[in-house]
Amino acid sequence: MRRSEFDSQDPQVIRDILTANKIGRVGIITPDGYPRIVPVNYVAIDTHIFFHGAPEGEKFEAFARGEKVSFAVDIPYSTIPSYWFEERNACPATIFYKSLFMRGTGRIIEAPDEKAKALEALMESEQPEGGYARISADDPIYRRRLSGVAAFEIIPNAIDVKLKFGQNRSLEVRVRIVKLLRERAGPRDEETAVEIEKTLG
Amino acid sequence: MRRSEFDSQDPQVIRDILTANKIGRVGIITPDGYPRIVPVNYVAIDTHIFFHGAPEGEKFEAFARGEKVSFAVDIPYSTIPSYWFEERNACPATIFYKSLFMRGTGRIIEAPDEKAKALEALMESEQPEGGYARISADDPIYRRRLSGVAAFEIIPNAIDVKLKFGQNRSLEVRVRIVKLLRERAGPRDEETAVEIEKTLG
Repeated sequence: MRRSEFDSQDPQVIRDILTANKIGRVGIITPDGYPRIVPVNYVAIDTHIFFHGAPEGEKFEAFARGEKVSFAVDIPYSTIPSYWFEERNACPATIFYKSLFMRGTGRIIEAPDEKAKALEALMESEQPEGGYARISADDPIYRRRLSGVAAFEIIPNAIDVKLKFGQNRSLEVRVRIVKLLRERAGPRDEETAVEIEKTLG
Repeated sequence: MRRSEFDSQDPQVIRDILTANKIGRVGIITPDGYPRIVPVNYVAIDTHIFFHGAPEGEKFEAFARGEKVSFAVDIPYSTIPSYWFEERNACPATIFYKSLFMRGTGRIIEAPDEKAKALEALMESEQPEGGYARISADDPIYRRRLSGVAAFEIIPNAIDVKLKFGQNRSLEVRVRIVKLLRERAGPRDEETAVEIEKTLG
């Protein structure tokens, strides 16, 4: 987070990144002192992160103790070859992306009603077409099952967002990259071109 | 890593996951005690991970001190709706995936020749079509530029791989899911069906 031209604290940008993805990575510190990274299917509600998992193990223990945890989402955009900038020098080769990093506090949701609500929000995100009975602590099919699964929450302390779309390059260079992206027309090139255009002011 | 039927230590499976992806996430522990997750473009050589970055900042410091670091790659496959298993109960909804988690030791590559070799391996992975001068510590266009960038290495201490493709389900259920995936024919469904078939023995 050293280059301020890439940083954003725009709440709308944060919301967009959190809802564009369904897979994020949770960070915890293991008892043997390693930073552990766990991919999760998550849903974000007001920048709080919710996911489910087993009610045991190192992730559960870290959250149950209310430890410092983290959460990361990244959205890769186009790769930009070095020869779009210079003929021989390989260094300008890059990839454009959006990324979000959250420092937070872990929490296990214990209350059955609150837990059912979090799991239902996850299902609405994962399976929007429905085809299941709404998750409720009162429904006999869920009452016992709810105790076999844990609902995890990350309460955010700080959120850093990085949007890397060539803002450290001149306007002229960025306009040329937009043109080259539209000529190449690869899978994410149009989306990348639109993001670069947002930086042109 | 509690369910042994999902675990793999097959060296070929490890190589396949490391080479299937170009984006991974590096874990470090920050001075203020958070697990920090950093997305990187990487290349793996004999299960060692190489990437480049700024020669300053918290990632550089952690690697320069030879701290415990980690590396994670995940490859999401198909989402499996709950109603493929049961009519009302939402709990079976899941996503199949491959994931790799490495505990390791961080290292900064200082020697110019070794650094050039690591950065060249990255370029060959990122820009296989060429279009640049091969990175070498002797080439005048790179000599000074090499000192402006850091090359990072993760030396693996332990690698855990998880392949989640319904191995905890009966053969009958897995065969039905393969059939339903091929009927749905979504973006990753055929690849997922092939992975499930590998578990049928």
